[in-house]
Amino acid sequence: MPGPIIALTTDFGWGSSYVAQLKAVFLGSVPEARLVDVSHSVPAQSVLHGEILLRSIAFIYGPGSVHVVVIDPGVGTQRLPIAVEARGCFFVGPDNGLFGQLKTVPGSRAVVLDKPEIFRHPVSNTFHGRDIFAPVAAELASGLVLDDVGTPIESWATGTLDTPMQRNGLFDVPLLAADHFGNILTHLHARQIPENPCIYLNKSEISLVATYGDATDGSLVALIGSDGYLELAVKNGSAAEALGANWQTCQLSVSSKR
Amino acid sequence: MPGPIIALTTDFGWGSSYVAQLKAVFLGSVPEARLVDVSHSVPAQSVLHGEILLRSIAFIYGPGSVHVVVIDPGVGTQRLPIAVEARGCFFVGPDNGLFGQLKTVPGSRAVVLDKPEIFRHPVSNTFHGRDIFAPVAAELASGLVLDDVGTPIESWATGTLDTPMQRNGLFDVPLLAADHFGNILTHLHARQIPENPCIYLNKSEISLVATYGDATDGSLVALIGSDGYLELAVKNGSAAEALGANWQTCQLSVSSKR
Amino acid sequence: MPGPIIALTTDFGWGSSYVAQLKAVFLGSVPEARLVDVSHSVPAQSVLHGEILLRSIAFIYGPGSVHVVVIDPGVGTQRLPIAVEARGCFFVGPDNGLFGQLKTVPGSRAVVLDKPEIFRHPVSNTFHGRDIFAPVAAELASGLVLDDVGTPIESWATGTLDTPMQRNGLFDVPLLAADHFGNILTHLHARQIPENPCIYLNKSEISLVATYGDATDGSLVALIGSDGYLELAVKNGSAAEALGANWQTCQLSVSSKR
Repeated sequence: MPGPIIALTTDFGWGSSYVAQLKAVFLGSVPEARLVDVSHSVPAQSVLHGEILLRSIAFIYGPGSVHVVVIDPGVGTQRLPIAVEARGCFFVGPDNGLFGQLKTVPGSRAVVLDKPEIFRHPVSNTFHGRDIFAPVAAELASGLVLDDVGTPIESWATGTLDTPMQRNGLFDVPLLAADHFGNILTHLHARQIPENPCIYLNKSEISLVATYGDATDGSLVALIGSDGYLELAVKNGSAAEALGANWQTCQLSVSSKR
Repeated sequence: MPGPIIALTTDFGWGSSYVAQLKAVFLGSVPEARLVDVSHSVPAQSVLHGEILLRSIAFIYGPGSVHVVVIDPGVGTQRLPIAVEARGCFFVGPDNGLFGQLKTVPGSRAVVLDKPEIFRHPVSNTFHGRDIFAPVAAELASGLVLDDVGTPIESWATGTLDTPMQRNGLFDVPLLAADHFGNILTHLHARQIPENPCIYLNKSEISLVATYGDATDGSLVALIGSDGYLELAVKNGSAAEALGANWQTCQLSVSSKR
Repeated sequence: MPGPIIALTTDFGWGSSYVAQLKAVFLGSVPEARLVDVSHSVPAQSVLHGEILLRSIAFIYGPGSVHVVVIDPGVGTQRLPIAVEARGCFFVGPDNGLFGQLKTVPGSRAVVLDKPEIFRHPVSNTFHGRDIFAPVAAELASGLVLDDVGTPIESWATGTLDTPMQRNGLFDVPLLAADHFGNILTHLHARQIPENPCIYLNKSEISLVATYGDATDGSLVALIGSDGYLELAVKNGSAAEALGANWQTCQLSVSSKR
């Protein structure tokens, strides 16, 4: 039988030994685990970037899978270490907003990780990924249930990945991040977008196309990405480059055609 | 028995969730598969870079292995999704030249992927890697044969990785790409190079050495790389840096000593 | 039974096929092996960076694990290919200082790899990783002992990762490398640091804190990293950036409070 899936999402980068140290915990205590590197290229300490990744992948590995998410600017301080269960999947990491989007999943719940007998000792002040989160994730992957690894908490931190709200018939849509292609991601879901939408970036109207290939080379367009959210793209080019270094300050709005 | 090898080559980068989403398809339907990340750092939409990688790795995982290659600027347009079989290995991806070099492999053949019952639905307009190529690759890894996943086609797209041709006793050798060491790769194979060759870069003659260590620190040399192709290198330095930002426009020629 | 662990540390980068070619050797001859990418982002030819990584991970995968470390500026020259055994773990790579720190491990020993019948042929002049180190590592992972793969040597190359020595009551501590967070690593171990230490960077005294969170935003502090060594950090910022491009030339000293 294939082993449990443990998915790793961190801001460690590939240049240091932190990823290898996390994996040593898993390979040692769950030798049959199937480890997936989701990303270790999250910009240092960007909780928002972690939320965007989780938006696409939280449930793709199915019930029993365990996500370890270590983007942890507050390591060693008051922020709690937690584990969340949602739709049969587990999520282990710091309570800093990373798991905010799971709060609205029916039946989701969380525990604070307060069982030091599970931890790796001595617990470092600066690397809870290795010493707290990985050992707990290993136990969950091995079959422990949520209540075995901590004490239930009523709620957990809200993230910054907000569902855009309509005001006066118009969505103000923050530009969140750029991928390797220079496509710019937002958190406006296709189901929120009105039919025949009117999309403005700063003062210019832009078209909504079905795929990159439908655009003219070099023109900036909007489209629905593979996760169902609105994104900006330039065919055979980079939207992030086209908009310049301050692309995050551009104003994107979506409304019904008048 | 160890599972089938599925090798992933993409231009997704490690900063987004695309790689993790591809893997979810494989981990879900071929749990015992052994996944190999060949590279996800292909420059965005560089089909040529994909061809260069395939040149070295097409057959190294042996019969039954499956390559998924997703460098796909034309996703969602007319370009066909295909699978190629050559020497018992499978290659799945867009028909945009990526697999051009396989056309000359004796017995190689291809099918167009026209069996939507194999796809993941709904099929996104912008992520055929996840919705078409990965599910098909998973089936091939699980034991389906080429004709199970598509309909034979007579030919497929030629790539841009050309074998340099001799003209008036001289090879004009394009400089293709630089690796992490700044070594510059070409597609001139050792067996094409005359004995006692005369190698010119722009107007300067350069030496052909046996290994990096045989060069003088800082001098630009030519050598036969580990794949059998001519490359340019600087010992304890970077040929790409030495030649400057426009290294791709430098003229490299190889001829017999007069 | 889970397969042996083979850990890969190289300066190959992810942009070329070298990593994939190494893995082909392992997947072909030790199909059940569990491969760990420690890092392929070591700065080109930085033996010191390899030593820093090994410092943290040499023994974390336990007895029987095999490290292949390919940072090999002298490939194809006189430098010897070696394998080292220490605490039941194996280390395979060039004898250029990478394994210097293992010399002081009680019972450690080394062999020169002089059994060409184990190598992959033809042996390339420029890629001993694939043709010598990987095949030898595969044999060690499969159960061969050190004496099966080479001939014992009395000693091997010393590295450049030196334990800082106290002079006139003061440690001069070289700044070695920066991680993804901009934290700057040193090789001064916590057990060498006096109680109530007095830490100076250039002419400014800096504080020793317990964790990043204990610092003020933007201030440069010292702390003991998760491996037990002194490092420099800026809370919610980058120490490497704060110190500027020439951070490696900054003078860090540690002494007892007078």
